[in-house]
Amino acid sequence: MEIDDPRPVLYLEDLTAGQTWESATLTVSADEIIAFARDYDPQPFHLDDAAARDSFFGGLAASGWHTAAMTMRLQVDGGPRIAGGQIGAGGRIDWARPTRPGDILHVTCEIIEVRISRSRPDRGLVTMLTTTHNQADEVVQTITATLVVPRGPGGGT
Amino acid sequence: MEIDDPRPVLYLEDLTAGQTWESATLTVSADEIIAFARDYDPQPFHLDDAAARDSFFGGLAASGWHTAAMTMRLQVDGGPRIAGGQIGAGGRIDWARPTRPGDILHVTCEIIEVRISRSRPDRGLVTMLTTTHNQADEVVQTITATLVVPRGPGGGT
Repeated sequence: MEIDDPRPVLYLEDLTAGQTWESATLTVSADEIIAFARDYDPQPFHLDDAAARDSFFGGLAASGWHTAAMTMRLQVDGGPRIAGGQIGAGGRIDWARPTRPGDILHVTCEIIEVRISRSRPDRGLVTMLTTTHNQADEVVQTITATLVVPRGPGGGT
Repeated sequence: MEIDDPRPVLYLEDLTAGQTWESATLTVSADEIIAFARDYDPQPFHLDDAAARDSFFGGLAASGWHTAAMTMRLQVDGGPRIAGGQIGAGGRIDWARPTRPGDILHVTCEIIEVRISRSRPDRGLVTMLTTTHNQADEVVQTITATLVVPRGPGGGT
């Protein structure tokens, strides 16, 4: 599945605070906003533009969880290619503004902190800030997440 | 859209710390895990059981963002029916264990804090803890989120 991926595989030793990645872009359609909302967040302002006009959002807006999911897609495809995969233990998520139909999203990832696990010295915990921007380069979402990252073949020995 | 909803509509004044709600249940299928992952988190351990066996997860596991999305669905349908909708500004999310094919999820919502907005006295900020459990009543995910909630027709006057 990753045969053609040109990105180097990264272990804990390869990550340092300050490293950044920038993703490709993704265009958000009203149909996708509505389809996601039907399955996962069926509230009027995520389902129908007319209903959304009278809401907090003032027009159709993507579910925040849809923005998070699209962010993950951009991050998987264009963020760090971590050995064993991008595996999050949790994090802090904030929605600065809604994602709208027609928005063109991209994400930047920045390593904030790298530390070896105390309980499992064969792995580490990496704090990464993922910022999702729209086409006006406005921030729509930030996630500060903790990723579980293995040490390299020579690590921990 | 909400015509047949028997739940009372809640304003800021109706919410107090300690109130709880319990959702219905939702059964997770392997097909849904894979379909979500194809769109939003295409990593081998979310796409293919055989590939997942050799991964951190040891078997097919839902994307954490899929767990978050399913949690939102249960919360919209069975959590507090807040005037104007459940509108989150952000929060803290933690995945305690993976969601697996066949898992039967339900969520509990608990109000943690209620406060009036300083900048917008017509609304308040409510901290709610949403815990997602599986059929063994193990916690798979917790979210502590800040919701934007309007004051009632008589509020703020």
